[in-house]
Amino acid sequence: MVGMLRLMGGGANLSLVSGYNRGVVLEAIRSAGTISRVELTRLVGLTAPTVSNIVRRLIAEGFVVEAGRGPSTGGKPRTLLRLNPAARYAVGVQLDPHSTDYVVTDLGGEVVARARGRGAGRRAPAEVIDTVSTAVRSLVRDAGIPAERVVGIGVALPGPLQHDRGIVLAPPNLPRWREVPLRDLLAAAAGFPVLIDNDATAAAVAERWKGSAAAARNFACIYMGAGIGSGIVVNGRVHRGSSSNAGEVGHISLNIDGEPCHCGNRGCLELYAAPRAVVAAARAHLAGNPAAALRLPARSRGTHADYLRICRAALEGEPFAGGLIRRAASHLAVAVVSLVNILDLELVVLAGPGFDNVGDRYVEAVRDALDRSAFARDNHSLEVRLSPLGADAGAVGAASLVLHTEFAPQLLGRPVQSAS
Amino acid sequence: MVGMLRLMGGGANLSLVSGYNRGVVLEAIRSAGTISRVELTRLVGLTAPTVSNIVRRLIAEGFVVEAGRGPSTGGKPRTLLRLNPAARYAVGVQLDPHSTDYVVTDLGGEVVARARGRGAGRRAPAEVIDTVSTAVRSLVRDAGIPAERVVGIGVALPGPLQHDRGIVLAPPNLPRWREVPLRDLLAAAAGFPVLIDNDATAAAVAERWKGSAAAARNFACIYMGAGIGSGIVVNGRVHRGSSSNAGEVGHISLNIDGEPCHCGNRGCLELYAAPRAVVAAARAHLAGNPAAALRLPARSRGTHADYLRICRAALEGEPFAGGLIRRAASHLAVAVVSLVNILDLELVVLAGPGFDNVGDRYVEAVRDALDRSAFARDNHSLEVRLSPLGADAGAVGAASLVLHTEFAPQLLGRPVQSAS
Repeated sequence: MVGMLRLMGGGANLSLVSGYNRGVVLEAIRSAGTISRVELTRLVGLTAPTVSNIVRRLIAEGFVVEAGRGPSTGGKPRTLLRLNPAARYAVGVQLDPHSTDYVVTDLGGEVVARARGRGAGRRAPAEVIDTVSTAVRSLVRDAGIPAERVVGIGVALPGPLQHDRGIVLAPPNLPRWREVPLRDLLAAAAGFPVLIDNDATAAAVAERWKGSAAAARNFACIYMGAGIGSGIVVNGRVHRGSSSNAGEVGHISLNIDGEPCHCGNRGCLELYAAPRAVVAAARAHLAGNPAAALRLPARSRGTHADYLRICRAALEGEPFAGGLIRRAASHLAVAVVSLVNILDLELVVLAGPGFDNVGDRYVEAVRDALDRSAFARDNHSLEVRLSPLGADAGAVGAASLVLHTEFAPQLLGRPVQSAS
Repeated sequence: MVGMLRLMGGGANLSLVSGYNRGVVLEAIRSAGTISRVELTRLVGLTAPTVSNIVRRLIAEGFVVEAGRGPSTGGKPRTLLRLNPAARYAVGVQLDPHSTDYVVTDLGGEVVARARGRGAGRRAPAEVIDTVSTAVRSLVRDAGIPAERVVGIGVALPGPLQHDRGIVLAPPNLPRWREVPLRDLLAAAAGFPVLIDNDATAAAVAERWKGSAAAARNFACIYMGAGIGSGIVVNGRVHRGSSSNAGEVGHISLNIDGEPCHCGNRGCLELYAAPRAVVAAARAHLAGNPAAALRLPARSRGTHADYLRICRAALEGEPFAGGLIRRAASHLAVAVVSLVNILDLELVVLAGPGFDNVGDRYVEAVRDALDRSAFARDNHSLEVRLSPLGADAGAVGAASLVLHTEFAPQLLGRPVQSAS
């Protein structure tokens, strides 16, 4: 199969280095849009012959095309290079309890097809893997993309995971998933290489690739799906930590004497601000106030549906719903302050379906808390933004992880392993 | 002056690269104790001619000496190399409110002289700089070290700082220090190059250099002096953050509805666990209980003296003092759980004078909390240790920052700038 993800075994040091340089060149061409060889050489800091060789190979392989001539700067006009976005594609899957989002992106990171299916919720892993495999093959076929141009499938899902072995450990939000070798099972079912990653890490990678964090060296992407996680980039690299489970902001304790959390801690952020907590608070209120203005269906159609209804009520000015979102946002804000104090970040991006509709209120709450209290606030600028990727953040991130692994490994913290 | 810290200006890319390789070789020799050129070449991953050239220069400069021959492995016995620890020295200064610690270390990181002086407390910066400058020159002279072998002075002190400009911003624990250009002022007064860094970062560097974290890729050093900070190493590099103020664990909020902190947050760790908080709780108890077993002098001889007395009472089994330390430790433990959840660490080291006497109790509380609640606890091992460097951690760290900057820049997160 074309586009087998590299770094699967040992003994590939030489190809690792040349792959690294190739990735630097390809990523520089992608970021620039169009660029001459001279500018490219200056930009990437390799020698002119090295860049020439890499570009020649990239053109031969179809990844890069010549795109006319740029304006002359004295000598003869320079030939411009640009990416051939149709050279390769990647599939991204965001596996959530309440829905599964699929995207296909081209080599430039543009979404060329998307679909949405049932969530992983309480379904058995084998059934979910079968559904995902079928959905991916249909999506690729219906988009008219030759299978040999698909580099692989990236799956983003809630942690904890064993990233390097492709195993889903025991996500509290996917109760039937216990040590499932998702990477290998899905690769076998779908016939494409697969990698898996934490949803928040995937969202952070997407922000750097297609979102609002292209230039940030130290930033976090807070991802709210069913739970609350964060993807962390430090010194320009994704930080995964010793067991690939960094960024668990959902289990920052905001109240040492608070309610016990399933994680063993007390007063964790998720107990106050995750959609489940907001819905539980709303239902408790409604049970005691039959005349309340806020309405939720007596028989719940799921946490996410209830949460969306509360968010819409808040947007429409219903005061109790507004108060619930305000409370969730103020708790999230305090956790973000701790995160910023620990990591000294320059940017925080909020992403994921938990911020649909009411994202601006969360942004405002986080900004206010940081203005009030971040320890180093006078020392450097610190921005808070809502992801421009909307509900696609996780799926686009999963696809870009696949492309990064193959074409821009320097953007990842360490080698990503995959199975095919 | 010999041993001027490098990286002071631009235009030094070539020397940066050769300095980097030289640092890799020198650090490999230091870590190994004695090592042959063949082993060294294998270890550092450079070509044999490159290693040979670097070693020849290191010997000519006096940094490395030949140290007899190792056992034959078939061919002729191999000449062993070792560091010449007396080739260079660095001074480390830990500036605390209640005391100033000085060490001189040799190139191998061994402490060859130490002294202790008055703290920075409420004294004016100019007076403190004058005292430090005089003390450093006396210490170097009395130790019989030629001034030209002193690479520079590292100063560790509480943040926030502007690390790259060498400016002390406004540490809450040094109330008279506001935007003081300490690096340049001390360099001018003492006649040595100076760099400054956060005390907790310095302690983390010391742990890797001479302490218990030599092999850890992701670890934090919790440093308790007057405040509580942490030095963070991720992917084997010191993480300083966007404004060089990462690691502010003292301002993790443990109670969103708690007392307001000077930082603008509420319920910060330092309000429960810093020595000042422990002493305040003890004095409040004594005021209401004249017959209490715990005794503190009616007229305080300083927070640190009171704190030490409480720690000793706790050690001797006095129950109220024991309860105070237990409470401080349990709060620290919850903050460490958050830190571990965010960074996915493999090691946490406790260092600094706040852990004198009672360090074991803090270690136990942190271990218990992590066993109970770290999100990824089943996924990888996670150790908690008390620093073997004792009260020297900050000063040794400051000295090792100087040596790292000159001789092992690859161990630091990014170039360190200094003034001379």
